[in-house]
Amino acid sequence: DPSFDPKEHQHLRYNPLRDSWVLVSAHRMKRPWAGQVEKPPEEQIPRYDPRNPLCPGNTRANGEVNPSYDSTFVFENDFPALQPDAPDPGSDQHPLFQSKAARGVCKVMCFHPWSDVTLPLMKHQEVVKVIDKWAELSEELGATYPWVQIFENKGAMMGCSNPHPHCQVWASSFLPNEPALSDRCQRAYFQNHGEPLLVQYAKQEAEKKERVVVENSDWLVVVPYWATWPYQTLLLPRRHVLRINDLTAEERGSLAAIMKQLLTKYDNLFEVCFPYSMGWHGAPTGPHLKEDNSHWQLHAHYYPPLLRSATVKKFMVGYEMLAQEQRDLTPEQAAQKLRNLPEEHYKTRAN
Amino acid sequence: DPSFDPKEHQHLRYNPLRDSWVLVSAHRMKRPWAGQVEKPPEEQIPRYDPRNPLCPGNTRANGEVNPSYDSTFVFENDFPALQPDAPDPGSDQHPLFQSKAARGVCKVMCFHPWSDVTLPLMKHQEVVKVIDKWAELSEELGATYPWVQIFENKGAMMGCSNPHPHCQVWASSFLPNEPALSDRCQRAYFQNHGEPLLVQYAKQEAEKKERVVVENSDWLVVVPYWATWPYQTLLLPRRHVLRINDLTAEERGSLAAIMKQLLTKYDNLFEVCFPYSMGWHGAPTGPHLKEDNSHWQLHAHYYPPLLRSATVKKFMVGYEMLAQEQRDLTPEQAAQKLRNLPEEHYKTRAN
Ligand SMILES: O=P(O)(O)O[C@H]1O[C@H](CO)[C@@H](O)[C@H](O)[C@H]1O
Ligand SMILES: O=P(O)(O)O[C@H]1O[C@H](CO)[C@@H](O)[C@H](O)[C@H]1O
Repeated sequence: DPSFDPKEHQHLRYNPLRDSWVLVSAHRMKRPWAGQVEKPPEEQIPRYDPRNPLCPGNTRANGEVNPSYDSTFVFENDFPALQPDAPDPGSDQHPLFQSKAARGVCKVMCFHPWSDVTLPLMKHQEVVKVIDKWAELSEELGATYPWVQIFENKGAMMGCSNPHPHCQVWASSFLPNEPALSDRCQRAYFQNHGEPLLVQYAKQEAEKKERVVVENSDWLVVVPYWATWPYQTLLLPRRHVLRINDLTAEERGSLAAIMKQLLTKYDNLFEVCFPYSMGWHGAPTGPHLKEDNSHWQLHAHYYPPLLRSATVKKFMVGYEMLAQEQRDLTPEQAAQKLRNLPEEHYKTRAN
Repeated sequence: DPSFDPKEHQHLRYNPLRDSWVLVSAHRMKRPWAGQVEKPPEEQIPRYDPRNPLCPGNTRANGEVNPSYDSTFVFENDFPALQPDAPDPGSDQHPLFQSKAARGVCKVMCFHPWSDVTLPLMKHQEVVKVIDKWAELSEELGATYPWVQIFENKGAMMGCSNPHPHCQVWASSFLPNEPALSDRCQRAYFQNHGEPLLVQYAKQEAEKKERVVVENSDWLVVVPYWATWPYQTLLLPRRHVLRINDLTAEERGSLAAIMKQLLTKYDNLFEVCFPYSMGWHGAPTGPHLKEDNSHWQLHAHYYPPLLRSATVKKFMVGYEMLAQEQRDLTPEQAAQKLRNLPEEHYKTRAN
């Protein structure tokens, strides 16, 4: 229809990684907001807090003392959702009451000894060290576990209970729902088109440009065509890479650079320490290391909750939980907004 | 394994309505919480607010004046995510850039003329009127639209921007993701077992009892075996019923009664106006009215966010968004807690 305008007319878009649809109703941004206003993220964080269990030299809940680390620091989560030795629940046999054993390990990884920095404010080499540690943990835990989930919950709004810069790594004896679905979708695409889904997608987006936020010779960040969160992004390598530990030293350097660029833009959007949950998806590991996984492409998802300002987020509630995800601005509008933001962080910008 | 204890040992449970798994790690309730604390739900709401667009006699954003209604009141959402006449986006043809037309209608339905009541505090006959109106709208919109989503976002924590008791009804030209998935799962179960999934499930739970919260001769409320939200419940008829408009007058009466019971327990749990998103799922409508939908069973889902107290909710964030949903107490623990709460609302209880 020639009169169709995605910014004015609601429509559905297909998410090929999850085999589902999102409702795009950009005209909804026009409604006034009288609902919940969040506390703005805290900006005054001390570099060192003697009571913070993540700081160097401090004692954690289990009595262990952190070393005086000066780069990254990894330890076992003191309240892990996954433990290595849980007994098997057995099964009720009835198809509606099925359970399975779940085993694994949960690690916490501090990015830096200081509590008052975040990835975009860290030095390039410090971010490279984070990437190297991600690769190391993926390789180490992936030797036996079928799935190693690296994820970062940033900001109190995203359930993060400690302001010290850190992420988590949960390895499990099972392939969780989301990677299982993504595996199915990528496999089907590869079978039908002879090329990995996300390799083809990166090529298309690099040409179309309208959803690109930042790019360099190895990496591309886009607001995906099917984004559900307002400023959701997808970080993709241009080369076909299965897992984070397959990245070359050069690719780790260009990854650190593009991450700093993206996260600086995120912070600049509302001039606030931007909350999000992010995580890596790569080919499954453990027993899957022996299989052909060429349908997989390494990528990271960023899911930030903010919609209108530093204090008004998007609520994924009634309609979204019970029927379908819905967004209030187009992915192209979000990409353009992020693309046009300054490359220098608002905190370090000269006045 | 004889040593298995679901309250101590993490395990996976299967959700047959979504063909997915949830990680149950009940031992996580032991960890201390130092993260975000929500504003407690507002308790002092005036019965009538001259600036509230949902109150009787007031003027809404589009200039329309509400009637002086004395029961339920339905009007078109002034900022609808779905409009009846959006043009067709056409398609890019490329499999990774697929879009579809989306048309529909969004209605708002006030439950009561007063802003300071909620369903559990309304009179029995007033709740019956809400149910009658739900049935009427389902029938009316379902005559042409394939899906009519009735849902309630209750509380600012669930993105509700108006304290007046109300719900929404969004009818769409497409079958959204969640009912499409549920349709697939219920159909497969019916084909394999010759009985509707949720009819069989209600029978099993009525016998097992350990997850039952409240029940009467027509209805059953359980914390489902596969619940993801801490105090999530599933409201089920005992009889095989496809749609809400198929309910008899007697069943509407017993539904009003059990809803009041459940919602009173919810409010009593933390002695606060309990936030949640809820909604109805029944057999698809419009063109699907002519098909055989005997695999479907009418039901309502309640998804409340609170976990530890009136101000500490469960965050479905990094691991949940990227890998798999995880819960911190067992469904049996949640059901027992709700079951044991008083039947009288804390606000009307004699001291
Ligand atoms: O329509 P409302 O109540 O203004 O908005 C609320 O419910 C909608 C449907 O679940 C969501 O899309 C919005 O994010 C939420 O704030
Ligand atoms: O492990 P944390 O940071 O204490 O907890 C946070 O992340 C977890 C994994 O996404 C979630 O299950 C929790 O709800 C959230 O508060």
